Amino acid sequence: MTDPNKIPTFSDIKKAFEVIEPFARRTPVLSSTQVNLRAGSELYFKCENFQKVGAFKFRGACNTVMTLSEGDAKRGVATHSSGNHAQAIALAAKLRGIDAHIVMPENAPKVKVEAVKGYGAEITFCESTLEARETTLSKVVDQTGATFIHPYNDARVISGQGTSALELLTDYPDLDMILTPIGGGGLLSGTSISAKSMKPNIEVIGTEPQLADDAYRSFKEGSIQPVLSTATIADGLRTSVGELPFKIIQKNVDNIVTVSEESIISAMRYIWERMNIIIEPSCAVPVAAVFDGKVRVTNKKVGIIITGGNVDLGNLPW
Amino acid sequence: MTDPNKIPTFSDIKKAFEVIEPFARRTPVLSSTQVNLRAGSELYFKCENFQKVGAFKFRGACNTVMTLSEGDAKRGVATHSSGNHAQAIALAAKLRGIDAHIVMPENAPKVKVEAVKGYGAEITFCESTLEARETTLSKVVDQTGATFIHPYNDARVISGQGTSALELLTDYPDLDMILTPIGGGGLLSGTSISAKSMKPNIEVIGTEPQLADDAYRSFKEGSIQPVLSTATIADGLRTSVGELPFKIIQKNVDNIVTVSEESIISAMRYIWERMNIIIEPSCAVPVAAVFDGKVRVTNKKVGIIITGGNVDLGNLPW
Repeated sequence: MTDPNKIPTFSDIKKAFEVIEPFARRTPVLSSTQVNLRAGSELYFKCENFQKVGAFKFRGACNTVMTLSEGDAKRGVATHSSGNHAQAIALAAKLRGIDAHIVMPENAPKVKVEAVKGYGAEITFCESTLEARETTLSKVVDQTGATFIHPYNDARVISGQGTSALELLTDYPDLDMILTPIGGGGLLSGTSISAKSMKPNIEVIGTEPQLADDAYRSFKEGSIQPVLSTATIADGLRTSVGELPFKIIQKNVDNIVTVSEESIISAMRYIWERMNIIIEPSCAVPVAAVFDGKVRVTNKKVGIIITGGNVDLGNLPW
Repeated sequence: MTDPNKIPTFSDIKKAFEVIEPFARRTPVLSSTQVNLRAGSELYFKCENFQKVGAFKFRGACNTVMTLSEGDAKRGVATHSSGNHAQAIALAAKLRGIDAHIVMPENAPKVKVEAVKGYGAEITFCESTLEARETTLSKVVDQTGATFIHPYNDARVISGQGTSALELLTDYPDLDMILTPIGGGGLLSGTSISAKSMKPNIEVIGTEPQLADDAYRSFKEGSIQPVLSTATIADGLRTSVGELPFKIIQKNVDNIVTVSEESIISAMRYIWERMNIIIEPSCAVPVAAVFDGKVRVTNKKVGIIITGGNVDLGNLPW
C-alpha cells in the first residue's frame, strides 16, 4: 500500500489506474477547430467533467477509499471540501459500502451540497475558513473513528489524480505540453509524475488565478507562501498548495502562470459556446492562460485537463 | 449519385458515411449513472453537439455539398435555415472551396448568425415565415445560379443524417430503441433507415414538442398536416415535416410522441447539470419523452441522438 506521506512513483499511479478502472470513466479527449484557430496550437481537452461526480477528484478519492484496509474502511471516511472532493469521497464510500462524513463550508455551491447528500453522505457545515474546516473535521473524526482523506496532501490521492494524464498521454503520446489548474496541487503534482515519467521532455505547467496566486508565489520563492486572497471565481482553486504536492511540483513542474478573473470568465464562456461542454471556472484557467499568451503554445500540441463541470446554472457569471 | 427526390437506401447511407468521414467527427457516445437511475433504463447519448458546427446537420450538408458535380459546385450552394443547417452548409461549402448563400430569418439566434458569418457565407435576412424564406431564397438562386440544398427534403441530406445512427449502432449494436426529435424529419427518417436495416426489430420513435406537433398529427392521420403553432422553445423543430422524410417515417417509424414546453426546459437543464454537456432545446425533447414516461423504456437500452448544442448563453430559459 502507498504511504500517504511519501512522494508517489509512476508505479503507484499505474497501480491506482488498475484500482479505479472498474469504477471510474475513461474520459474522452475532445478538440475543436475553432478553439485551435484562436489558440494557434492544437489543444486536447481531457474531459474530467465527464468523470463520475463530474470531476477528476473521483480518481484520487476512489483510489484512496478502495485501498483502505478492511478495518479502517469499516469505521468510514471523512473529509472537508468545498465541493468536488466531497462528492468524490461520498460516491467512492457508497461504492465500497462504507460511511462518509463530509465537512463543507456554508457557502459551498448548492448543486454540490445536494449532490453530496444524494450519494448518502452525512454533511456537517462550518465557516468557510480553513481553520473552521479543520476544527470541525477533527470533531467528526473523534466522534466516528473515520479515516480522514485529505483532498490533496496525500500520496494515494495524488496517485489517483495522476491517472488522468496517464490516460491522456497513452491516447496522445505526441503532446508537447500539459496544462492543469493548481489549487491544492493534487492534480498538478500527479499529472507531473505521469507526464515526466512517460515523456521526460514534455513541459508541465500549472495555471492559477491572479486572485489566488499562492502556488505561483510559492513556486517562485521556493517555499510555501500564504494565501492572500480567495476572491477568485475559480472556487476549486482557493485552497493553499499542500506540502506533499509542492515538493513534487518543485521537482517536476516547468512553470506556474497566472490569469485575471476577466480572462477566466471569458475563456469559460468561449469553451461553453464553441465546444458545447460545461466546464467549471477552475479549468477555464489553463484555457485563459493559452488565450492570453501566458504560455508559449504556438504550433504545439497541448493537453489541458478539464477538471470538472460542477457549476450552479442558476448563478452564471454572465 | 443519389437522386435527391428518391427514398435513400441503407447503401446510400453507407456511401454517405465514406464521403463525410474525412470531414465530420465520429462523435462520442456518453452515458450517466444518475440519468439512467432517473430513467429506469440505459440511455446512450450520441453526441452530435460535438459534431462540426455543433450539430448533426453537418452530416447531411457535407454529404450533399461534397457529392455535387464540379459544374454545379462552381456556382455555389444556397439554402434557408433558422440556424444549424445554415452553419452546416456554410462550413461544407468552405471545405469544398465554393460560395454559400444563406437566407436566415431575422429572429435567428445571434450566436448562429455569427457562426454562419464566421464560415464566410453570405447572409440574406428575411421574415421568419416559411413563405418569406422561400421567396427570398428563389431570388438568391436566380441571381447566383447556386444549387439550393433543402434542409431535409432531399435524399442526399437524409442519407448524411442517417450516418449518426449508423455509427451509434455500430458502437452499440444491442440497443432496443432509438429516439430522435422531429422537425423537418431529415434526422428521424435517416435514422430509421439505418436502424431498421441494421436491426429490423429495433424500435424507432420520433419525439416532438406539443407546441409544434405537426409530425405527430401527420403520423396519426396518414397525411401531412399543417403546422398550427411555432411557439416552442425548440427552435430546430418549428418547421413542417417534409414530403420525402414523411414517406420514410410512415414506413419505418414505430411511433411519434409529444412533450410539454415545461418538460423540455426541465430535461434540458437536468442534462446540463448531470452530464456537463450543452444540449439545445430540440434534443431535450426525446429526453423529456423518456422522463415523462411517454415511451416505455424500462430496462431497455435506448439510443438518443443529441442533435446539437447551439444555444444563446445570454438568453437561457431559466
